[in-house]
Amino acid sequence: MQQVDVITLGAGGGAYPAAFRLARAGRQVLMVDPKGVMSGNCLAEGCVPSKAVREYAELSRQASRFGLGRSTEIDLAHIMTHKDRVQRTRYTQHAAELEKLSAKLSLIQGRARFQDANTVVVENDSGTKSYRAEHIIIATGADIFVPPIPGAEHCMTSRDLFALNPTMQSLPRRLIIIGGGYIGLETASILHALGSEVTLLEQQQQLLPGIDPDFVAGLTPLLDPTIRMITGAEVASIEPTTAAVLKVSFRTTEGDEVLAADAVLMAAGRHPVIPEGLEALGVQVERGRIMVDSTLRTSVPHIYACGDVNGRVPLFHAAVGQSLTAARNILGGDRAPMDYFDFNSVPTTIFTLPAAAYVGRTRAALQAMGREAIEAAYVFAEDSRAQIYDEPDGELRLFFEPGSLRLMGGWVLGIDAGQLIGQIGLAVSKGLTARDLAAFCDQHPMASEGISKAARRLF
Amino acid sequence: MQQVDVITLGAGGGAYPAAFRLARAGRQVLMVDPKGVMSGNCLAEGCVPSKAVREYAELSRQASRFGLGRSTEIDLAHIMTHKDRVQRTRYTQHAAELEKLSAKLSLIQGRARFQDANTVVVENDSGTKSYRAEHIIIATGADIFVPPIPGAEHCMTSRDLFALNPTMQSLPRRLIIIGGGYIGLETASILHALGSEVTLLEQQQQLLPGIDPDFVAGLTPLLDPTIRMITGAEVASIEPTTAAVLKVSFRTTEGDEVLAADAVLMAAGRHPVIPEGLEALGVQVERGRIMVDSTLRTSVPHIYACGDVNGRVPLFHAAVGQSLTAARNILGGDRAPMDYFDFNSVPTTIFTLPAAAYVGRTRAALQAMGREAIEAAYVFAEDSRAQIYDEPDGELRLFFEPGSLRLMGGWVLGIDAGQLIGQIGLAVSKGLTARDLAAFCDQHPMASEGISKAARRLF
Amino acid sequence: MQQVDVITLGAGGGAYPAAFRLARAGRQVLMVDPKGVMSGNCLAEGCVPSKAVREYAELSRQASRFGLGRSTEIDLAHIMTHKDRVQRTRYTQHAAELEKLSAKLSLIQGRARFQDANTVVVENDSGTKSYRAEHIIIATGADIFVPPIPGAEHCMTSRDLFALNPTMQSLPRRLIIIGGGYIGLETASILHALGSEVTLLEQQQQLLPGIDPDFVAGLTPLLDPTIRMITGAEVASIEPTTAAVLKVSFRTTEGDEVLAADAVLMAAGRHPVIPEGLEALGVQVERGRIMVDSTLRTSVPHIYACGDVNGRVPLFHAAVGQSLTAARNILGGDRAPMDYFDFNSVPTTIFTLPAAAYVGRTRAALQAMGREAIEAAYVFAEDSRAQIYDEPDGELRLFFEPGSLRLMGGWVLGIDAGQLIGQIGLAVSKGLTARDLAAFCDQHPMASEGISKAARRLF
Amino acid sequence: MQQVDVITLGAGGGAYPAAFRLARAGRQVLMVDPKGVMSGNCLAEGCVPSKAVREYAELSRQASRFGLGRSTEIDLAHIMTHKDRVQRTRYTQHAAELEKLSAKLSLIQGRARFQDANTVVVENDSGTKSYRAEHIIIATGADIFVPPIPGAEHCMTSRDLFALNPTMQSLPRRLIIIGGGYIGLETASILHALGSEVTLLEQQQQLLPGIDPDFVAGLTPLLDPTIRMITGAEVASIEPTTAAVLKVSFRTTEGDEVLAADAVLMAAGRHPVIPEGLEALGVQVERGRIMVDSTLRTSVPHIYACGDVNGRVPLFHAAVGQSLTAARNILGGDRAPMDYFDFNSVPTTIFTLPAAAYVGRTRAALQAMGREAIEAAYVFAEDSRAQIYDEPDGELRLFFEPGSLRLMGGWVLGIDAGQLIGQIGLAVSKGLTARDLAAFCDQHPMASEGISKAARRLF
Repeated sequence: MQQVDVITLGAGGGAYPAAFRLARAGRQVLMVDPKGVMSGNCLAEGCVPSKAVREYAELSRQASRFGLGRSTEIDLAHIMTHKDRVQRTRYTQHAAELEKLSAKLSLIQGRARFQDANTVVVENDSGTKSYRAEHIIIATGADIFVPPIPGAEHCMTSRDLFALNPTMQSLPRRLIIIGGGYIGLETASILHALGSEVTLLEQQQQLLPGIDPDFVAGLTPLLDPTIRMITGAEVASIEPTTAAVLKVSFRTTEGDEVLAADAVLMAAGRHPVIPEGLEALGVQVERGRIMVDSTLRTSVPHIYACGDVNGRVPLFHAAVGQSLTAARNILGGDRAPMDYFDFNSVPTTIFTLPAAAYVGRTRAALQAMGREAIEAAYVFAEDSRAQIYDEPDGELRLFFEPGSLRLMGGWVLGIDAGQLIGQIGLAVSKGLTARDLAAFCDQHPMASEGISKAARRLF
Repeated sequence: MQQVDVITLGAGGGAYPAAFRLARAGRQVLMVDPKGVMSGNCLAEGCVPSKAVREYAELSRQASRFGLGRSTEIDLAHIMTHKDRVQRTRYTQHAAELEKLSAKLSLIQGRARFQDANTVVVENDSGTKSYRAEHIIIATGADIFVPPIPGAEHCMTSRDLFALNPTMQSLPRRLIIIGGGYIGLETASILHALGSEVTLLEQQQQLLPGIDPDFVAGLTPLLDPTIRMITGAEVASIEPTTAAVLKVSFRTTEGDEVLAADAVLMAAGRHPVIPEGLEALGVQVERGRIMVDSTLRTSVPHIYACGDVNGRVPLFHAAVGQSLTAARNILGGDRAPMDYFDFNSVPTTIFTLPAAAYVGRTRAALQAMGREAIEAAYVFAEDSRAQIYDEPDGELRLFFEPGSLRLMGGWVLGIDAGQLIGQIGLAVSKGLTARDLAAFCDQHPMASEGISKAARRLF
Repeated sequence: MQQVDVITLGAGGGAYPAAFRLARAGRQVLMVDPKGVMSGNCLAEGCVPSKAVREYAELSRQASRFGLGRSTEIDLAHIMTHKDRVQRTRYTQHAAELEKLSAKLSLIQGRARFQDANTVVVENDSGTKSYRAEHIIIATGADIFVPPIPGAEHCMTSRDLFALNPTMQSLPRRLIIIGGGYIGLETASILHALGSEVTLLEQQQQLLPGIDPDFVAGLTPLLDPTIRMITGAEVASIEPTTAAVLKVSFRTTEGDEVLAADAVLMAAGRHPVIPEGLEALGVQVERGRIMVDSTLRTSVPHIYACGDVNGRVPLFHAAVGQSLTAARNILGGDRAPMDYFDFNSVPTTIFTLPAAAYVGRTRAALQAMGREAIEAAYVFAEDSRAQIYDEPDGELRLFFEPGSLRLMGGWVLGIDAGQLIGQIGLAVSKGLTARDLAAFCDQHPMASEGISKAARRLF
Repeated sequence: MQQVDVITLGAGGGAYPAAFRLARAGRQVLMVDPKGVMSGNCLAEGCVPSKAVREYAELSRQASRFGLGRSTEIDLAHIMTHKDRVQRTRYTQHAAELEKLSAKLSLIQGRARFQDANTVVVENDSGTKSYRAEHIIIATGADIFVPPIPGAEHCMTSRDLFALNPTMQSLPRRLIIIGGGYIGLETASILHALGSEVTLLEQQQQLLPGIDPDFVAGLTPLLDPTIRMITGAEVASIEPTTAAVLKVSFRTTEGDEVLAADAVLMAAGRHPVIPEGLEALGVQVERGRIMVDSTLRTSVPHIYACGDVNGRVPLFHAAVGQSLTAARNILGGDRAPMDYFDFNSVPTTIFTLPAAAYVGRTRAALQAMGREAIEAAYVFAEDSRAQIYDEPDGELRLFFEPGSLRLMGGWVLGIDAGQLIGQIGLAVSKGLTARDLAAFCDQHPMASEGISKAARRLF
């Protein structure tokens, strides 16, 4: 049985940053991943490829608005080629980085299960092999959740759109998306912009369930109104009919409805992938998530769980930050941690067209805690850059603690949301104040001016 | 003679923020401006209209790279119409804001000169009138500097491009730009991208004189190599020839050269506009700039000078920040200031294609002070978003103080420079550390990931 | 009727800092105070004189422990002379400062009542006079609360101890203190250390009602155990008997008890002094306190209320901070405030022997908000300075937000509490983190080492 | 040859914090120290025992000023007994802490020399033994420097005063101290306060050579004027005469002088103790100091040098901070450091009577860098606590960067200097601003009020 210092289950965002850091610290590290490549679902079928497609839609939208011409027909296959190229470039770069540290770090393809608290059994085409390690990082991520709806097997998933050489190479004329979480909503927005006729069905009464309702209420009117979005929709079945047409039956409070589509995308959510054998070790799991504290340790101190598998902030960049925290705590000695992850200041961007983003504690979270806030907003209707880009809708909103004026949270609805949330998020993370934001001279004419302008309203 | 509390000379970025703040504090304020509108040269012929044009070039460049089509001929008149619309929108908004505070605040068109330290004489079509005020803010901005070169009168200036209803309505086939400062370089980059054949002549040995040479050396190769840029070029004359062609004669160390062009843009710099009558008041002026300290007071305590006229950081957003500082110090009582402006943490973006930006103290400034720095860089070749946009060239670089790891400065060369500098600049402004930047989880996949990734290299 | 810009009702900590700031800003300011001197009860009969007496007790305690000798009999009259001298020195300094600004600022002795929202009527020996002002700051402070107990009129109050030329010039042999708030407890501790036999009666079940019970539980055992402290004691009456002896009857759950004493100190609390005529103006008052937000404005925007009268943080240094905030908001224009007071980060020291101090949100407050904390403590038993001073009891305890590690609160029980709380409080005020505290090298061998040592336990 | 993970040469402040941290991280650690106990010279003969003696002098001074009596004769032997007790208490506590980690950490008495870059040979009474380690921390401290003056062997050193069971058990009537560095000056001040007649001879023109001259100029008049302090004094010889009297001959610009004394203390400075065998390893040493960067690595990456031996900030608390930084960098992997020490923000207190303290960059350092500062001062003459303690001399002074208002440095001369420097130093360390300091409400009536009062002068 091979002995290493650290094993990571997975090689995605929750795993490889720790693996690299530990290898650089001289530890012998083994990553085990079913895909056999780094970056997990994010690069394989998630954020990176979806954004590669999204930016086509975004540019096309902007170019069209600027009268810069737009091919009457956008060729999805052309976009997919570009997307595949980005993915391949990154895989190549990752392989080169891995190679540089090969004396200390290796990645093997395979499915891992726990034999005991320090032993992992890996199965792959070459057979079954056991590895022993002093520390283990579980970073097995999450997988697509397919609800038990009759006919669900006829649906596509994000994998069919965003994996390398994806199944979908031409736009469906009519697309139904089941699920109005961020994946469903982003895909609705992107494919609609590229030319599909999109209907989105969300079971709950609110799009983007779990997110601040006022944020969602602010985002919704910014989206193209010709996307049909139905909330409170309970899907009953998906049935194939002749000639590649699917019929989706669903019920709302207004009655039953049946819609036909050329494709149905199942985007009903994701669930953590719990490695086999874990339950026997006494690692605490609740509602399908591995419990961790801000040190990323599980209830078994030498076992860590980073990224989607702990269900705290299921975003790639959160996983990366957690992974580095876990690495430092392994270096510090499990029972003497020396790094802590702040789950509260991770920015989230909904990459619709336009995008929207938030960070920290916004109105709903503060109200739930019984805390007051001084709100300061800036509407893009008065923003130079938004006017230049002809995107005057939306706003930027900041939530300050009364007295200290510490920034507790913020959101951006509309132009440059994904960029602006960085500056706002850093300020939340460091507890900067309205005064700090007001004192800084944001570059003119960029939308970030809205940050200082909002803050300056308090002075 | 009418008596008010405060007069601002000018109604641009250095003036109107103070005017509004003081009016809201109950002071009677008068703005006097030659244009009779707010926002000064920035909106009239500077940052806003130039960016309106630039974004066409940017989008066209991106759309073309994405194969999203580009009209073979970009119609400059169409772009100018859009630009004019943005300017008009802003003027309308400003007028509405002014109207709301009309009980306390007024703006008159006219040219102002000092009669004594509290009296200003305004001349305009209605005649000459005197106003007396307890406090005066000089925010007369800067004007285009035209060097005494024979034939300079045949040159266009940025005004011909960016004013409302600009003279230039079609692209010159061959354009010569005299001056490689940021206005010259941006215009070269923009008009070249729109289709002109551009030659830029800079007298000094370095483009962007006065800016960190290593920053400039990093930016230059990112620009389109088919823009001809000649440094160390002493222009001798501009001569019109037949049929709307101009001949520019200049000398470099390699000898004399004559180039023909359909238009010549004079972009040799700008100089502060010192109001008449100032010298008699004992207000200290050095090298054409009104001297101020970080409170924005001149050597005469009840007279302030904000924006380009003090020559410290000639940028609109710097002027705005200074103006607010001056307003607060007027409220605090000239001799008991209560706000201070940090000239050191204002971000500067060079809006070329691609753009580049810097903030704080970068390598050259630190070396000049004898201070060491820990540098941390991130190259966009490894950036997801840069790969998606196919803009892999350039880098982001941070300069930290050894020991404290406080961020002293940074630059961004390439993708999203104008956005990224906001987050970096706020961090410089607040003295955040590499650890603070490293702890924050920047949104994936956005170029701001480079900030945390660079910082994380230290840990 | 005389017209000024600003009137302050009171000339104490909530009033004079604003008055001076506004006068320096050029405003005409009038302070009206019943005492006719600055600094209010704090200097007249509160913090300053009580600390002047306390430090005698402290030094005597230390000197005795060090074997440096102690007069067998401490002469209270001698201490009172020193105390009076300190008070007089300060009054002289204040008068000189006032004199310097006399062109803008004046202080008149008198009792003020509101005639209307801008008019104040002042009564004093010279008669009655009205003053009109644009802005009014109510800073009338608080007064000793005497509960309706039969015989209460026979009790002394802190005024008899700490006013100039105080009534008490010799130590009572047996002293009963009614009230276990901070005034009662401090006085008990001080007079006991000087030689009195002290019994303290507190009505509630906890000493220092309203303060974190765990803090109180930590402080109590540090106090001299020969002070008799009885909680849950309902005082029924105070009766004089022959020969300057008072009998105090009280009831606890254990039954009725009667104690004899040479003096009884009434320390049952303080209540805000609401100026006459206020109720008619619509200024919101709740439970005897004038309601303000973090700008210090009352519900009538041009009327401010600072210090004890708003009942938020009844401490002199809090009043001073509030007063400056009010001044800046008056300068900014009542409806356009520009400063905000953070009620949450004001340090409180209980000046017993030894002292104890806290700041921010400690355990009980966090629990009440449903917030978790990472606690880090340092016991003075391991502290060099505490060992040198032979004061090894007590601890320093910090409360950090999980994840961000932001310091939310802290307490110090024992050596140098009043000094250490400054560093901890500044950190709370600015939201510094455990990492920030851990990175700083506190001076050895000072008790502040405990701050970094506690924080370093997390790393 | 025994193999461990880490060896520390020394067990003082530069060594044991790292040793404990590494042991808690699971590393096998060996400390080798000539004394065979922890804490080095600081506890053995430095800061702790000297402060134990100093506080007697301080209390005696205060008690006498308060008329609280003072034994006419202070018995030095009594003080020394107390001092010894403090030292013994700490040694006992250290032994107990060491015992708890004995599985991972051991301390052996002996003198260590390098055999090669990973091997250390230890000699002691048991013989000679070699140890091999992956990482080595040199923390051998500094030793008393005795200049080659004829008769220097007749002088006492701080060891004779402050070691356990010190030689000096009674006060010399006349004491001459050679050296006006902080040890010389503190000892002069302490022994003078206890009753000796003291003359101090400093070779340079300035007391406390190397420290900001304006700080020194501020401190000097606070010291008792009956201490005779002679600068520019070149000592020629120390000669014993009959009856335990020493004659010290020295020359100043005013000529030669001879003074007689009952004891002469040699306090001419300290020099780093470089371990034998180091030079052969290629570790860079300059002017007798081991060169390190802010990671504490020497030029040989697996060898670290912490504390006095690197000559950067020769203070115990600096050594402790450095030691922890080295420990984290060893955990991170020598070539991948993860912690950095800020040599610039370590507070220094001169423990004279009264004490004085500074931190960061004060006037002289800033001038040397060509940087301006906004200075804000507070004189203790206006301080309540200073008045209560009758110590009105001295000041607190803060140095802010113009514009950013970041606190760059500060000093305290007089009351509570050693405590106040903690709050100021933390602010310097974190780059807090004048506004941050001004916004905080320092506890009244404590001398820390001066911090916010000084800062508030800017607003």
